[in-house]
Amino acid sequence: MDENCIFCKIINGQIPSTKIYENDYVYAFLDIMPVNKGHTLVVPKKHSKNLLEDDVEDLKHCVEAVQKIAPAIVRAVEADGFNLGVNTNKAAGQAVFHTHFHIIPRHEEDGLRPWPQRKYDEGEIDPVKEKIIKALEK
Amino acid sequence: MDENCIFCKIINGQIPSTKIYENDYVYAFLDIMPVNKGHTLVVPKKHSKNLLEDDVEDLKHCVEAVQKIAPAIVRAVEADGFNLGVNTNKAAGQAVFHTHFHIIPRHEEDGLRPWPQRKYDEGEIDPVKEKIIKALEK
Repeated sequence: MDENCIFCKIINGQIPSTKIYENDYVYAFLDIMPVNKGHTLVVPKKHSKNLLEDDVEDLKHCVEAVQKIAPAIVRAVEADGFNLGVNTNKAAGQAVFHTHFHIIPRHEEDGLRPWPQRKYDEGEIDPVKEKIIKALEK
Repeated sequence: MDENCIFCKIINGQIPSTKIYENDYVYAFLDIMPVNKGHTLVVPKKHSKNLLEDDVEDLKHCVEAVQKIAPAIVRAVEADGFNLGVNTNKAAGQAVFHTHFHIIPRHEEDGLRPWPQRKYDEGEIDPVKEKIIKALEK
């Protein structure tokens, strides 16, 4: 419990939420500012500021809950699929610093566009690979 | 192994890839059409067409690998954060039907915009919650 964390306050009931699921490890509630209706946040009950700082067991509980919850969301809002997303750090759009998995139900032709992709220039990809492998060794 | 699956062919070496990490359960390689340089795909070695069909243990191996790999990617490309994403079904932008976790490194001011969010109308959120809870009971 972080006393300044809005999601910790939601989990312990100090702040109301629209809860759809809860177990010993995770709490899931509707995002009040949804990308599409049914947009849900799945959060580990134990506070951590982002995915890199969670106990891995808590992340595993989250994905287990996602696998259970997401199909129910898809059925409930008659969606055609969903995006699972976790934003880490402000640069990635993280706004609340308590790890949360977004489940965003999607509909054919809902108008949401994927981010543009590009190609690597000739000879550009291998140095990127080498840097990552070197960083993994540290 | 699905003989028609491009990711299964990458995992078993029939198709070349820029591998950055591998263990008994997962295989991670650079997306050749990155949103940002260092964009990586983490895939369970065992074929399944999407996240809902994976053995939950394989998803757990994937998040464990993400927690290990993502910080190395961020350091390697000098990013400020990252998005983790899994697209399920065509409506959600899934293009290869073998479960994959996208790790997209992000930079302050990289110009990638989040999807627009809206509000629920008065009285609109509770029926959505009730439908999801009912669907969860099935």
